[in-house]
Amino acid sequence: MMEEIYFDNSATTRVSDSAWEAASRAMREEYGNPSSAHSRGARVFHALNQARATIAGLLQVPPEELYFTGCGSEGNNTVVYGAVQAGRKERRRLLVSAVEHPSAMEPAKYLAGRGYELSLIPVDREGVVDLAALRQLLDDRVALVSVMQVNNETGAIQPLTEVGQAVRELAPRALFHVDGVQGFARLPVRLQAWQADAYTISGHKIHAPKGIGGLWLKGSVRIPPLLRGGGQERRFRSGTENMPGILAFAAAAEEAAAGMEAFARQMAAVKTVLRDRLLATVAGATVNGPAAGAPHILNMSFPGVRSEMLLHYLEQQGLYVSSGSACHSRGSKGSATLAAMGLKPELVDSALRFSFCRYNTMAEAERAAGIVAAAVREIQQLTGGIGKRRERWQTD
Amino acid sequence: MMEEIYFDNSATTRVSDSAWEAASRAMREEYGNPSSAHSRGARVFHALNQARATIAGLLQVPPEELYFTGCGSEGNNTVVYGAVQAGRKERRRLLVSAVEHPSAMEPAKYLAGRGYELSLIPVDREGVVDLAALRQLLDDRVALVSVMQVNNETGAIQPLTEVGQAVRELAPRALFHVDGVQGFARLPVRLQAWQADAYTISGHKIHAPKGIGGLWLKGSVRIPPLLRGGGQERRFRSGTENMPGILAFAAAAEEAAAGMEAFARQMAAVKTVLRDRLLATVAGATVNGPAAGAPHILNMSFPGVRSEMLLHYLEQQGLYVSSGSACHSRGSKGSATLAAMGLKPELVDSALRFSFCRYNTMAEAERAAGIVAAAVREIQQLTGGIGKRRERWQTD
Repeated sequence: MMEEIYFDNSATTRVSDSAWEAASRAMREEYGNPSSAHSRGARVFHALNQARATIAGLLQVPPEELYFTGCGSEGNNTVVYGAVQAGRKERRRLLVSAVEHPSAMEPAKYLAGRGYELSLIPVDREGVVDLAALRQLLDDRVALVSVMQVNNETGAIQPLTEVGQAVRELAPRALFHVDGVQGFARLPVRLQAWQADAYTISGHKIHAPKGIGGLWLKGSVRIPPLLRGGGQERRFRSGTENMPGILAFAAAAEEAAAGMEAFARQMAAVKTVLRDRLLATVAGATVNGPAAGAPHILNMSFPGVRSEMLLHYLEQQGLYVSSGSACHSRGSKGSATLAAMGLKPELVDSALRFSFCRYNTMAEAERAAGIVAAAVREIQQLTGGIGKRRERWQTD
Repeated sequence: MMEEIYFDNSATTRVSDSAWEAASRAMREEYGNPSSAHSRGARVFHALNQARATIAGLLQVPPEELYFTGCGSEGNNTVVYGAVQAGRKERRRLLVSAVEHPSAMEPAKYLAGRGYELSLIPVDREGVVDLAALRQLLDDRVALVSVMQVNNETGAIQPLTEVGQAVRELAPRALFHVDGVQGFARLPVRLQAWQADAYTISGHKIHAPKGIGGLWLKGSVRIPPLLRGGGQERRFRSGTENMPGILAFAAAAEEAAAGMEAFARQMAAVKTVLRDRLLATVAGATVNGPAAGAPHILNMSFPGVRSEMLLHYLEQQGLYVSSGSACHSRGSKGSATLAAMGLKPELVDSALRFSFCRYNTMAEAERAAGIVAAAVREIQQLTGGIGKRRERWQTD
């Protein structure tokens, strides 16, 4: 059987052994409801708070400032809707970077025109937010500034310390939210240095199961909840806690953070090999995003080759990658992120994202480079004479 | 070791073998993102839709009308907030039964006074909605009528066909929502006969993991989403789908539905034995809720005994039950449901909920009855001289 290479870890990851064990135990043995008053509930409540303390510890925040959510999207939605409610009538402007994830962008777009004003913070050619432009946009009518830690498509790392400084200086009452879904447990988190107010995380990008996320909210920040009901999570997020997800998330986060530097080095090496081989062997190949981006994401364009087609060639060789991001690729029309970076349509249409995890190896990188180079060649030859070939197929 | 008896299945359940296997497989093998364009994603997307079809089949609705959510609370919140937005300026009244779960009640209370008017539909002594009172409340300014299928505390089964008929007659444009969290896969669901527009379900009450729920919305109903972003779930519920939860939910639902009649008979027998023994052996014991309630929930009061205290006595004997519902028991102040039924405070304060699943046995019911009767006697003796005893403990 063909050995598969999974280079789509920014879409989602395989659940790690320890995370799976934690989830299994929560499903089969310690299956109580943390809100139950009896000891079966109390044990689960204790485990819930241990998991909270574990993740809060990694973020260096007090555990009571961390809330578990159903997914990263829920965290982002909660912050966007909450910030404008907290901003009342005085602060009705939203600043969202042009390359944010749809789960931050779409709520903001929904609010735009419904009494709120949305401005997109532009990014440069490498997908990094334009600080000068941000400063121009900031004023005391801003309710929210939302900038991600690591871009999910290009791996661009945003200058959050500088963003935070500008926000504190020019819009001190704005809520500064960092979407950390692609950064948490893979890159250092410096919430204090960033002067952030809110940070969104997600489990399934770091080998925990899908269906669990988290939101850190600075203690001084008061925003209303998105989900109301039984008053779980200190009344901020009602709904019975996803205990298998939460315990698995804590296990996965701990594991990822413990080996963070080594894993980052390994992923960076995988990325470098793949990138350098592709630049050397595929004519016209270019890298989208900064050279010094996150170690786990590589975005490249292969001019003349449509990424959807290339993606399917690659999967036939057992290599799994993305065109754009997975989070919204079904039925989507090309990457808004790459377009915001000013890439020409032909580069956008031919862009592939390779995203790595600690289980990926140098051997995989080398093999993948060969597979991609061969696929690009084959497609280029094919599309050189596509009219004729299609005709021939149809009459076969 | 003491054999435990878990009679708190309406708080949450142990995950079944088949549900756990489905979740494990989704975590470890078929871990792709259903939105990914490659075959790993496509296989998961296919599994997602199979799960949707399974549950939709049990509800006898088209699969495309069923949306997966993060929990029952999310479903209820989505409907309450959505209904008033769909109601625009014309329909600003909310009718919610006085015994609804907090995840329907709290969003409605939040809206009350924010331009919307909330009326609680009263219930009778057994916790069943008062149809005459409902008819009085209905008019064409009603945006939402929310009534649960089975009450989570008493097991009262609501007369949904009659409710639906009244809604269609007197408030034809209102959205009629049924919270099915305590009914789905344990009692027949008759969405068409009820003339319902929306139905909320949850996994962890039927041996699926915590962290997964579902919402059926009739095709003709248009309400806005609660979570926006990547556009998953046909743009109605953004956020990467909780695949382990979804596949486990479908497995658990199928299993529960396949044996529904037999399981219901077994749970009814367990309930009957426990109830009859307690009525016969505990002086003053009363049943809260209708005699013909759901087979899996029994609520009884033991006058003179505070339920929190009784609960802790019982757990020391390995018997797990609830005082009130688990969903909101930490820090709560007694059951709003029992109060709405007109129970005197002493009956409310001494109420216990026993809730069953198909794994419970007659032997457990018999043993539990003995444990409860003995505990009540012991507490009654103790509290007869509680002043003195407390004094003595304090000086020990």
